Amino acid sequence: MAEKLRGVFTPNLVPLDSRGDINEAELRRYVDWLIARGVHGIYPNGSTGEFTRFTVEERQRIIKIVCQQCKGRVPVLAGAAEANVKETIRACETYYEYGARAVAIVSPYYYKLSPESVYTYFREIALNSPIDVTLYNIPMFASPIDVPTIRRLAEFPRVIGIKDSSGDVVFMCRMINAIRPVRPEFSFLTGWDSALVPMLVMGADGGTHATSGVAPELTRRLYDLATAGNLSQAVPLQLRLIELFDAMLLSADFPEGFRAAVELRGFNFGRSRQPLSETQQVDRTALQRVLRCILADFEIVDPPEEGCLPRTGNMQRDKVLQVTEAVLRELKNRGVS
Amino acid sequence: MAEKLRGVFTPNLVPLDSRGDINEAELRRYVDWLIARGVHGIYPNGSTGEFTRFTVEERQRIIKIVCQQCKGRVPVLAGAAEANVKETIRACETYYEYGARAVAIVSPYYYKLSPESVYTYFREIALNSPIDVTLYNIPMFASPIDVPTIRRLAEFPRVIGIKDSSGDVVFMCRMINAIRPVRPEFSFLTGWDSALVPMLVMGADGGTHATSGVAPELTRRLYDLATAGNLSQAVPLQLRLIELFDAMLLSADFPEGFRAAVELRGFNFGRSRQPLSETQQVDRTALQRVLRCILADFEIVDPPEEGCLPRTGNMQRDKVLQVTEAVLRELKNRGVS
Amino acid sequence: MAEKLRGVFTPNLVPLDSRGDINEAELRRYVDWLIARGVHGIYPNGSTGEFTRFTVEERQRIIKIVCQQCKGRVPVLAGAAEANVKETIRACETYYEYGARAVAIVSPYYYKLSPESVYTYFREIALNSPIDVTLYNIPMFASPIDVPTIRRLAEFPRVIGIKDSSGDVVFMCRMINAIRPVRPEFSFLTGWDSALVPMLVMGADGGTHATSGVAPELTRRLYDLATAGNLSQAVPLQLRLIELFDAMLLSADFPEGFRAAVELRGFNFGRSRQPLSETQQVDRTALQRVLRCILADFEIVDPPEEGCLPRTGNMQRDKVLQVTEAVLRELKNRGVS
Amino acid sequence: MAEKLRGVFTPNLVPLDSRGDINEAELRRYVDWLIARGVHGIYPNGSTGEFTRFTVEERQRIIKIVCQQCKGRVPVLAGAAEANVKETIRACETYYEYGARAVAIVSPYYYKLSPESVYTYFREIALNSPIDVTLYNIPMFASPIDVPTIRRLAEFPRVIGIKDSSGDVVFMCRMINAIRPVRPEFSFLTGWDSALVPMLVMGADGGTHATSGVAPELTRRLYDLATAGNLSQAVPLQLRLIELFDAMLLSADFPEGFRAAVELRGFNFGRSRQPLSETQQVDRTALQRVLRCILADFEIVDPPEEGCLPRTGNMQRDKVLQVTEAVLRELKNRGVS
Repeated sequence: MAEKLRGVFTPNLVPLDSRGDINEAELRRYVDWLIARGVHGIYPNGSTGEFTRFTVEERQRIIKIVCQQCKGRVPVLAGAAEANVKETIRACETYYEYGARAVAIVSPYYYKLSPESVYTYFREIALNSPIDVTLYNIPMFASPIDVPTIRRLAEFPRVIGIKDSSGDVVFMCRMINAIRPVRPEFSFLTGWDSALVPMLVMGADGGTHATSGVAPELTRRLYDLATAGNLSQAVPLQLRLIELFDAMLLSADFPEGFRAAVELRGFNFGRSRQPLSETQQVDRTALQRVLRCILADFEIVDPPEEGCLPRTGNMQRDKVLQVTEAVLRELKNRGVS
Repeated sequence: MAEKLRGVFTPNLVPLDSRGDINEAELRRYVDWLIARGVHGIYPNGSTGEFTRFTVEERQRIIKIVCQQCKGRVPVLAGAAEANVKETIRACETYYEYGARAVAIVSPYYYKLSPESVYTYFREIALNSPIDVTLYNIPMFASPIDVPTIRRLAEFPRVIGIKDSSGDVVFMCRMINAIRPVRPEFSFLTGWDSALVPMLVMGADGGTHATSGVAPELTRRLYDLATAGNLSQAVPLQLRLIELFDAMLLSADFPEGFRAAVELRGFNFGRSRQPLSETQQVDRTALQRVLRCILADFEIVDPPEEGCLPRTGNMQRDKVLQVTEAVLRELKNRGVS
Repeated sequence: MAEKLRGVFTPNLVPLDSRGDINEAELRRYVDWLIARGVHGIYPNGSTGEFTRFTVEERQRIIKIVCQQCKGRVPVLAGAAEANVKETIRACETYYEYGARAVAIVSPYYYKLSPESVYTYFREIALNSPIDVTLYNIPMFASPIDVPTIRRLAEFPRVIGIKDSSGDVVFMCRMINAIRPVRPEFSFLTGWDSALVPMLVMGADGGTHATSGVAPELTRRLYDLATAGNLSQAVPLQLRLIELFDAMLLSADFPEGFRAAVELRGFNFGRSRQPLSETQQVDRTALQRVLRCILADFEIVDPPEEGCLPRTGNMQRDKVLQVTEAVLRELKNRGVS
Repeated sequence: MAEKLRGVFTPNLVPLDSRGDINEAELRRYVDWLIARGVHGIYPNGSTGEFTRFTVEERQRIIKIVCQQCKGRVPVLAGAAEANVKETIRACETYYEYGARAVAIVSPYYYKLSPESVYTYFREIALNSPIDVTLYNIPMFASPIDVPTIRRLAEFPRVIGIKDSSGDVVFMCRMINAIRPVRPEFSFLTGWDSALVPMLVMGADGGTHATSGVAPELTRRLYDLATAGNLSQAVPLQLRLIELFDAMLLSADFPEGFRAAVELRGFNFGRSRQPLSETQQVDRTALQRVLRCILADFEIVDPPEEGCLPRTGNMQRDKVLQVTEAVLRELKNRGVS
């Protein structure tokens, strides 16, 4: 039996060249860099990876490049959602040939489906996929997959885990309660970096963490500390990581904040296919300065030459916090509905 | 200058054959049937048309078939949203060549974008499309387009109208307030059949109505009565149409209820690409019986042999109403967030 | 049988004196002023009337004063919701003695109840109240009352109408569809001023309109035009009224914008019991200036000495619109959930 | 300086007699029983305590009884929210005289206030209360209190803590990040029993837990295990407690499930002031049977004579889970908006 999916998987962004095409060389260099810094796996074509903004052919090419570059050093969890069941199964077949360890399939989106339809969609895939399938629940963007549906789908051996990006620790507990007794080897992965430690404490096996694409050292260290039971160090680190995650997640339209951050690590990711207005470009520069200061606090990058404002107790920070929460409430509204 | 978009456009479903491929002959027959029953235009690749469940190539083929079959008898409003700005502009070019009157482009979905990003996305398209563009606001499925953003986009001559499926009459009024003074020829189309009469009363120019794909005679008559100011007949007909729309919209995962209904008009639309479970197939049969009764009330189809229950005052109906509202609240939650 | 509730009811704010107590003289003067300007009834202790911010004794006193002052000239619809069923029935008895025409009882709030509990709550009241009862549905603040529940409650003769503040025209249509056939004399009142005309067109009987507390002439005129079928005048007036309503509703925490506006009509309403911060006081002054300009456009008040900016086409206005919609989406989220 | 609030506080329900009045003797007996089973404090007039369904005088009497009965054995955290700032401050004064340790004040409800208004409301209280104040954030029922607002309010020494019932672990972390550096002795209490362990792990000080009103032994044990760092025992117990909490929270309109459960411990709580329909009474009996089985699993009560179904793997349970999540999504929608 294949090994259980566990640890920190990086949902990688895709570097683009000046014409907006996939920058293969930079993507390969980035994969190597991530592996060298200790991530346990790569997760291309996820939400952070902007899978919806690529064509079918480009999505295939991304998986091919990542699988080739990983060369079996770490497993690849390949995002495989396509326009309909038939196309998705075809992607499963292709990614199986490419050597991916498993696919992650987001619940149908645009249309918001009932639990029964979500079940039927995944059942069809579970019965026909040649490669292990991880369900992907991201209720803020796609039809929610509820616990009973996950439970029903866990009856198919091909379904080996769930990646949940709701950020809801109690939801994770309910899934574990419902499924672990019948499928002890089922993988529970969280996609919400801010809750990694409490998720691991309650029994999750790891996650796909966008912060690991920017600061793989930190996410890996957090995972190691928490799984070793070293909470006295894990908790303070988790608390600090929340500031980083929030800044990247909420200061720009997702996932632009993560792209702005990863460039600080020495990569050229190019411009997003979602164009930025003039105002947004100015905001992005300001955000990048803030991100540099946060990362410098972790001693991962150098602080900017002009220095950093103390980040405690000033009104500016209060304002950011207030916006943060308004956006979070909005996201949750989207997510849970 | 091209004529203003107005009237009843049918967002057509696409018939599939037994292998799940596009049934071209049936699609052509359906287009003829719709035109013969008085719809003012056809709107392929809309939400009712399940555009997300087709491949890029299939979406092109659908537009090509519909444009050919219309032969200029009625204008075609072609859904043209693709994976990113570049691909969408390419679709605009293709559909221009096919002879579509305009394209309708849904706001970016999956990711929920800020107003500034929605603006930037459409601006890029407005500046590069060779064909007139209709914005498509469907907040229950895609990033909302707010009034100030519509106003800003209305500064581009290429943007000639908005199709709004929020169902919110006051939102329609706010759009009219903001845009008509500066763009008197701008088209305001509603995609919410249940509110067609109040929308027309307040100044809308027509809409894209899924009921017109099932009962084109009725939607057309409703439009004619309302635009002629004959409210004493339009209002009762609108009230009755709500029952039909609700039953099709809410009794199954959208747009399955509309597919179940259109089959009652003598077409073979095949099975959806979103598979139905055994339970759902049973439910669909029951729904189709109810729909037949409603359509028989309008004297559009024959009642079922086993007859119809009186549809007033029984508990069954109460239950349907209760589910209806729960679903509607859910939809709105999705929509407005 | 008592006459059906119809027309424009004013949900009056309550003037407070310098100590924060009810300013009885000013309240009486205000009631006279409203009646003189043509409102069809008064609706004290509504949401606009801040009923939750008064004590039980004060709520009683407010009803008493308003009933006395109306002296039968216009009917009083008395808000009667108290802490629990027993207390609410007691209020019904008291307001019956005071001479109110009917009570309006908001669905239970704080706890969000299921339809069955909402039904049970109102059933108990319907069976014990000596005075006619109007259900009050305001889903943004209280447990929603869905159509099947309204239908079940309409079986009690004591329940004579519904006041709905959802602003949803199609919801109004569904209510009319469900209840009018069995209770033709049932009153359908809307509490959403921006939709008064489409609501009346579809069959509503009137409403409780906060704008009528500020500009009773306008709301009354709008009602008269719409009920007379004069849509060519009613529609443009409705469109203009939306700007006024939005500005009062959304520019400050409800109902502070309405208090700021009514002061422009020559009344002293004192300060709200919800304290205003320094920033909010500055914002209020700015808002009042804007409101004065809007009301001056209607020739109801004089424009400010410093003049008014043209209100079309400037960015300021765009910003207001954007905030407006964000707030509306937020309100709807609250409401429909 | 007074000791920091920490540990398990019981938000007690209030027993009613056959006339619906406060059953003082039973309330006193219940308080003794809770203290004997190890709760660290009592929290009367909370949401579980149905504070909105009592009159002002009754709320006072409840606090008086509880304070008297506790006799200083455990601290009393008294719910003190009244109709407006003045009345709330008056309650603070009264409860101070009664000997409460602190008051908990829920954010204004019905109206949903902006952060600035929430701040102004609590500031007024913080400046005038003679007794320590705990902010009470329960976004599913009342205006949310966001982190920046909590931070601003933490500048007032009278504000000594926050009780948060959002159930969001990351929100708890953000509060701790923002406030602990400037107010190390500030109390962070969670009101979401299902997340007690992860909350404590991340730094919370305890909570107000409705399960502790039903199974004080268990909640206390969970708290002791988690604070002692014994996660290998705490986590499985937390996972089991979620089932109990969910069943009580979601199977009936809150807090009826908790009343049904506490009766199984030998208390007579009477009937709620929110009347139950015939259907609901049947459902309640069924729920009580399920609750008895869950509590019997914990060896707290005897199983029912007819025995219990195995609670794993059957469809009934799946159905409950599905309803659970639908309700939770609904609650969250309400909560976060």
